[in-house]
Amino acid sequence: MTQLIDDKDLNFLLYDVFKLEQLTELERYQEHDKTTFDSILDTAKGIATDYFAPHNAKADQHEPTFDGKKVETIAEVKTAWKQFSDAGLLCAQHDYDAGGMQLPILVNMACNAFFMSANPSTVAYSFLTAAAANVIQAFGTEEQKHTFVPHMFSGRFSGTMALTEPDVGSSLGDLTTKAIPQADGSYRIKGQKMFISGGDQDITENIVHLVLARIQDAPQGVKGISLFIVPKFKTRADGPLDESNDVQLAGLLHKMGYRGTTSTVLSFGENDNCLGYLLGEAGHGLKYMFKMMNEARVGVGLGAAMIGYRGYLESLNYAKNRPQGRPVADKDPNSKPVNIIEHSDVKRMLLTQKSYVEASLALCLFAARLIDEHQAAQDEESAILLDLITPVVKSFPSAYGPKANDLAIQVLGGAGYTREYPIEQCYRDNRLNPIHEGTYGIQSLDLLGRKLWQHNGKGLSLLMQRIQKTLSEIQDHKLAELAETFKKHLATVQKTTQVLGQALHQSRVEAALANSGLYLDMMGKTIIAWLWLEMANQAQLKFVSSDYAEDQQFLTGKMQAAQYFIRWELPEVEHQAQLLMNFDDTCLNMQPEWF
Amino acid sequence: MTQLIDDKDLNFLLYDVFKLEQLTELERYQEHDKTTFDSILDTAKGIATDYFAPHNAKADQHEPTFDGKKVETIAEVKTAWKQFSDAGLLCAQHDYDAGGMQLPILVNMACNAFFMSANPSTVAYSFLTAAAANVIQAFGTEEQKHTFVPHMFSGRFSGTMALTEPDVGSSLGDLTTKAIPQADGSYRIKGQKMFISGGDQDITENIVHLVLARIQDAPQGVKGISLFIVPKFKTRADGPLDESNDVQLAGLLHKMGYRGTTSTVLSFGENDNCLGYLLGEAGHGLKYMFKMMNEARVGVGLGAAMIGYRGYLESLNYAKNRPQGRPVADKDPNSKPVNIIEHSDVKRMLLTQKSYVEASLALCLFAARLIDEHQAAQDEESAILLDLITPVVKSFPSAYGPKANDLAIQVLGGAGYTREYPIEQCYRDNRLNPIHEGTYGIQSLDLLGRKLWQHNGKGLSLLMQRIQKTLSEIQDHKLAELAETFKKHLATVQKTTQVLGQALHQSRVEAALANSGLYLDMMGKTIIAWLWLEMANQAQLKFVSSDYAEDQQFLTGKMQAAQYFIRWELPEVEHQAQLLMNFDDTCLNMQPEWF
Repeated sequence: MTQLIDDKDLNFLLYDVFKLEQLTELERYQEHDKTTFDSILDTAKGIATDYFAPHNAKADQHEPTFDGKKVETIAEVKTAWKQFSDAGLLCAQHDYDAGGMQLPILVNMACNAFFMSANPSTVAYSFLTAAAANVIQAFGTEEQKHTFVPHMFSGRFSGTMALTEPDVGSSLGDLTTKAIPQADGSYRIKGQKMFISGGDQDITENIVHLVLARIQDAPQGVKGISLFIVPKFKTRADGPLDESNDVQLAGLLHKMGYRGTTSTVLSFGENDNCLGYLLGEAGHGLKYMFKMMNEARVGVGLGAAMIGYRGYLESLNYAKNRPQGRPVADKDPNSKPVNIIEHSDVKRMLLTQKSYVEASLALCLFAARLIDEHQAAQDEESAILLDLITPVVKSFPSAYGPKANDLAIQVLGGAGYTREYPIEQCYRDNRLNPIHEGTYGIQSLDLLGRKLWQHNGKGLSLLMQRIQKTLSEIQDHKLAELAETFKKHLATVQKTTQVLGQALHQSRVEAALANSGLYLDMMGKTIIAWLWLEMANQAQLKFVSSDYAEDQQFLTGKMQAAQYFIRWELPEVEHQAQLLMNFDDTCLNMQPEWF
Repeated sequence: MTQLIDDKDLNFLLYDVFKLEQLTELERYQEHDKTTFDSILDTAKGIATDYFAPHNAKADQHEPTFDGKKVETIAEVKTAWKQFSDAGLLCAQHDYDAGGMQLPILVNMACNAFFMSANPSTVAYSFLTAAAANVIQAFGTEEQKHTFVPHMFSGRFSGTMALTEPDVGSSLGDLTTKAIPQADGSYRIKGQKMFISGGDQDITENIVHLVLARIQDAPQGVKGISLFIVPKFKTRADGPLDESNDVQLAGLLHKMGYRGTTSTVLSFGENDNCLGYLLGEAGHGLKYMFKMMNEARVGVGLGAAMIGYRGYLESLNYAKNRPQGRPVADKDPNSKPVNIIEHSDVKRMLLTQKSYVEASLALCLFAARLIDEHQAAQDEESAILLDLITPVVKSFPSAYGPKANDLAIQVLGGAGYTREYPIEQCYRDNRLNPIHEGTYGIQSLDLLGRKLWQHNGKGLSLLMQRIQKTLSEIQDHKLAELAETFKKHLATVQKTTQVLGQALHQSRVEAALANSGLYLDMMGKTIIAWLWLEMANQAQLKFVSSDYAEDQQFLTGKMQAAQYFIRWELPEVEHQAQLLMNFDDTCLNMQPEWF
């Protein structure tokens, strides 16, 4: 049976590191306890294992087809969709009143982690639907909510986010899809959208597109953009679906990975018969969409983390069971080969993966906990902190998850490169994550150009407070040494931030942002190193009170991974800081005609 | 038309950096001049462009099939094979007497570069054949040479190298394929081989396998291994092919990339009717195979470099022509979008690729020139230097070529992730290169555990002489600054080498080799940085005497890429050196049960 997450690790993260049980003290979650959490996690794990993992490879090999009329997906995708929605997982985090379970986002995120590890392309339909429903639930009129949300929560309808267009890419302000007001308050939508995941399929009765468009005569740029609900079939509040809403599938895109999820080019209103319904106020489309987008960004981070995690577990299992070669000091050809996990370089490849993927999962769970703190405990500071780190939550796993998959292939060698093993698919699937929902470059500009300076830099001081708390709690001698190393590099990052902030303050925008990618990586490493310190400290505390050798081994592994990340990876920020503080202009000054 | 290499770059490398014309002063090459070189390069470029590039994607989408009886490849592969062999490219470097052109290896390598860029999986059949023929030519008896080599040079037969086995992986000393002596001096071969590229196909009349096997009662380990010529069909010196030689295709492996090249599991002698012919002396099999292997390792480096190069050119072309977004300081939504090559982060991604792939190609050409110096000018020192750097020639491009492809995808964004563009295939193809012909880990042990210390460390001092020569020739003020930065890091690398050498001398083998992967990367960065300095210096000299703006732009780009590599990439050796000199034991001490 496919192992999706190390149970010990997930329990450790949820209960020891992120203190899940504390959340039951909040009114919203008071009906929950460890038993209900574990039971829901078990359900998610079971469905992921039984209905998602088994067809992960098949969905890749038999990607959706389009014969000009109808899209076809394999039957297993539909069964999985039904299992997921029947279990209430499309709306688990919502109010009891709305049919949800009032599940903490932290638990919901952990449930999602199983699915991302099992089959990221099939579960993408579910996640997009949940996210789209959340936006309508948050900003829609009562009628809009009534018309769409219950059907999305139940799995009868799915949802998408339709942002970009063929000539637009990341530059959403330039989009040209038009919305022409009608007498009845609705809009006629006309335009083409590209790279729309789940934009067509044969899984659900209807598809609810959230479409960014420009109302006739709206101003240029982002201020002219509004958000519309555009169903595939015209939809009445109650009763059966009406005729087609003139949303045509122009074609499927064929991706390297994530093949099970349709990626579509959609034409809205080719026959001038596509109706859309304005969501919220005109001209605020991007703001609403960013609610969905921010959720999706954390989701991308989680996907990248879990595809990385899955590859790690596969390569770990292989390394533990594959005899080959001998220790470097053993020159006797008659000695027995050892399992490859005994070779130092293989240990390095496994430990590196562990340090990336377990901390990436921790980072996503941390983001989830911040959402809980904000939504259920009305802690505004948590929202500010989440806002600051969202580019990192999206980007660190997206950059390092694929690196982990690369190492996982290498552990298996030639076998890892074949489709007879699942890791090459992980490697292909994960390559999407640094691109969609805002590329790495976009995230880096968001962090360095905007997020850091909002609320007078409050986000960063909140982060530093959390970091200081961890540092102040460390007692163990060996961890204290690691903490010292960490502090040295943290000081460098703080200094760099200051220098760049000053330059921005002096309107040296181009120079300050020229190497923003370096800064995003640096901040990612810092946050991940902090999470490793926090995990190592919790592991150390638990180790002391633990009597079981197996637990102690697991906890020792956590401390060793922290040591790896802080000694091997974190120090790279020093060189990055030099380039940033020197405003190195090598890239900025490179001229197109010099290439 | 697909651009395979930047012509300006190749000319610059061949004639300015590696002084190709000097080679015509050697007796072996005296019939050649710039005109013959250019004409052969043109031929190679033409065949690569017309017969290899067009079916690169098709060979990937229609990988070879096996119905239990016969392998089928697409027709274009056969046409390409014929064009390649008819042009004499299978034996271009060989003596006029043997039907060759006595072409310098340097020119041959440049020819190969076109094919690797165009279609690495189709040309793999040719390269394996040329390499196998070279081994028979070097070590075979007159009869063996006569029986096989002319047919391999002409393209009637192909060749393979059959080393590893299902349970053996990189640990060749453990292989179990048996060779049982026959009365007539031949051997009956029995055993299974795995991951044999080109091990079966429908392109040639016969396939000549070079098979590592153990003669009955031979000692355990590498000393008991001999090399055998094992044709698919029994072969007489003259005349038609006899019946099958009992080499069965047990199955095809299905790879993530390089799909056009069959990867096979072969059974030798299932019916006890497989005859092999001992090549050279018994027990020296690995030594002969390593002639082929070392050639193959440089070939892998070249392949990785050129797949990286191809992706770079594709992404450069896209970036120059894709308008999207505005400069960071331009907040006017009515301004026109700029081409993405204007964005600093896109410049970074292109410049990084340039710095990896152009220098990787330079590295392979340098290796080729060393072979010429050794073979045609009898310079033994060149052979020693080549031997030292072979792990780097194999590994730097294999590690950084895929990184370049990763960046190329990122430049295109969502488009780069689709199969509608060629880069995702580059990314998949290139992932093989850190694995085959000795994994990255194996190369690192070869360099740090062996190569550095052979001939009393002569290889390293020869490398340092070459580096010193470059440094002493730099006059330009700005380059001198870069050279200073380089020297600082070079000193660190030298110091690290000393410290590790001492530890090995004191038999601290395990500690000294524990982090060998870091050392290989460090040495790779050093050699590449040196090549960038050399290229920048040649560019600077040429710039001064150049009157054409376009040439000057190209040369300025070279200097900027050198600056990029030395300022951005090389300094990472400092942190690596710290870990190495501290004998950091984080990975070594990690215990299997802690994972």
